[in-house]
Amino acid sequence: MVPLYVSLKDVAERAGVSFQTASKVLNGNSGVVSAQTRERILEAARHLGYVPNALARGLVRRDSLTVGILADDFSDASLSRFVVAAQRTIESQGHAALVATTTQGSDGPLRRLQEYRVNGVLVIAPSVEEDESVGEYLRGPIPAVTLNHIPGGGVPAVGSDHRRTGVLAAEHLLELGHRAIATVTGPTARRVVVSRTSGFRETLHAADVELPDRRVCATDWDARSAAAVTHELLDADPHVTAIFAHNDTMAFGVLAALRARGVPVPQRCSVVGCDDLPLADFAAPPLTTVRVPFEETGARAAELLLARIRGEDTPPRDLLPVQLVVRSSTAPPP
Amino acid sequence: MVPLYVSLKDVAERAGVSFQTASKVLNGNSGVVSAQTRERILEAARHLGYVPNALARGLVRRDSLTVGILADDFSDASLSRFVVAAQRTIESQGHAALVATTTQGSDGPLRRLQEYRVNGVLVIAPSVEEDESVGEYLRGPIPAVTLNHIPGGGVPAVGSDHRRTGVLAAEHLLELGHRAIATVTGPTARRVVVSRTSGFRETLHAADVELPDRRVCATDWDARSAAAVTHELLDADPHVTAIFAHNDTMAFGVLAALRARGVPVPQRCSVVGCDDLPLADFAAPPLTTVRVPFEETGARAAELLLARIRGEDTPPRDLLPVQLVVRSSTAPPP
Repeated sequence: MVPLYVSLKDVAERAGVSFQTASKVLNGNSGVVSAQTRERILEAARHLGYVPNALARGLVRRDSLTVGILADDFSDASLSRFVVAAQRTIESQGHAALVATTTQGSDGPLRRLQEYRVNGVLVIAPSVEEDESVGEYLRGPIPAVTLNHIPGGGVPAVGSDHRRTGVLAAEHLLELGHRAIATVTGPTARRVVVSRTSGFRETLHAADVELPDRRVCATDWDARSAAAVTHELLDADPHVTAIFAHNDTMAFGVLAALRARGVPVPQRCSVVGCDDLPLADFAAPPLTTVRVPFEETGARAAELLLARIRGEDTPPRDLLPVQLVVRSSTAPPP
Repeated sequence: MVPLYVSLKDVAERAGVSFQTASKVLNGNSGVVSAQTRERILEAARHLGYVPNALARGLVRRDSLTVGILADDFSDASLSRFVVAAQRTIESQGHAALVATTTQGSDGPLRRLQEYRVNGVLVIAPSVEEDESVGEYLRGPIPAVTLNHIPGGGVPAVGSDHRRTGVLAAEHLLELGHRAIATVTGPTARRVVVSRTSGFRETLHAADVELPDRRVCATDWDARSAAAVTHELLDADPHVTAIFAHNDTMAFGVLAALRARGVPVPQRCSVVGCDDLPLADFAAPPLTTVRVPFEETGARAAELLLARIRGEDTPPRDLLPVQLVVRSSTAPPP
């Protein structure tokens, strides 16, 4: 089998120097040889098309870091925005990102990241919230930053203000005059769902509007199940005049169900989403939503992790602000 | 600075053996020592929590491969589905995937993948179509497979049948009786756009329906610019009764423009998309589209690359079938 890569040994042979000498010069430690020898080695490397070996270099020095990203399936529209923003930040600073997905649990990918001697781990994986073993690893010697709740805590976290998301949605609907209000949420075990729902419920409660359990419809983040629970909700409780969906994808499902029932939006029912996906403005009608700062969050998490790897002090928790974006899916109740 | 990882040297010291002996045993070459010594080394490794170093091992053997993925910004809904499917296939076979993004051109990420001594490169990056330098690299000694056209060719390609996509959309609209037909495409320099448009145009032409240039509206894959060109199209040519959009995201923009103009879909104008995004079924009305096999394509490309790395013969080109999905956005012309 022909080797794929030109080795340091090839360079040393061509330059007529020892492996050690070639290695020192090509790793930037030129003081050890004459200018002439140095030039001969560099010329040999150029001629042969030698590319430095990050793997071998990783064993001796660390000017370029490798950051491991532990990610859930990022074909999810919002997760992928976190991952790409983090990756872009890492690469723009000359470092490399190794993405390992949790498609088969977290043990395998975490071990693989360890085997690659990553300098730090960034967690963008809601599935770890249920994973007791992951906390022990992430509290260990390898610097880590997480976008998700880690069982047992103790890992610096970056995220957006989920409670505030619920508050903003509730305030907007209350200001329009709604009092019969429901919400379509993700799985109730998820921290983000607990935070958004409690911010939403407490804000309504402060205005003497109750959010009974029958008006909290938990489902699985996707449009199809959101449409199904919207039909169930309105079959049982046709007086609802406003629905807050915990993501824009589910809001598309809520809108489709209302359309199928002949309920005009926003004239007879208002809908608020969450995320501000690029398609939110192209829903029918254009969707009022709470903007989640995906790109900023991914970038901030990457910066924080790089700072931790450099040994700098970092805050234990960094919450980025969310923002209400009013479009045409909300109006006063009929 | 405390080392992050337990080294082979630590294990050797604890077991009271040489570095070389510990290395051989922990790399699976146990024949060289007594069973007792072997057990002592394994016990020391367990006690210290030693994790094999893929980087060091990469220099000596290759039972676990590292596949480099060169990807454009995968926050794009369809690219991310290719990337995740490829990554899942690679990881499910015990290998690792290193993703490098082209956010700053292809030279940097390709060099980084080389520095990590990847065993092969998978290209999921439409931007390389315009990149003359990338072909030279991908035709070199490192096995490569691409989802995109590579200038100069010579790199095994996996994809879906773009020409057939155009044919299916045209056949469907012709069968419904449309004759005043337009298309909203991605950038005309893109191969996928050329193939889809030529399949579409030739099928119409065979039925004596012409597709004049004014009815081919090139734009930039996103909903907002698709909405803008739809307004321009219908201002100039109000008799159009059907529009084929080259992706579902743009179809959402086309639908929004028609809605804004008070043109009912499908009664006065039919719309066909392409991709079959999860949200296509939640458009208003649910979108007729051509399904692109994202997951199958990413998985197939990864399998093909792994086969090439193992030295097996592989086809130079593998086109996966596309499929028309009829929903409610198409009907006979008024």
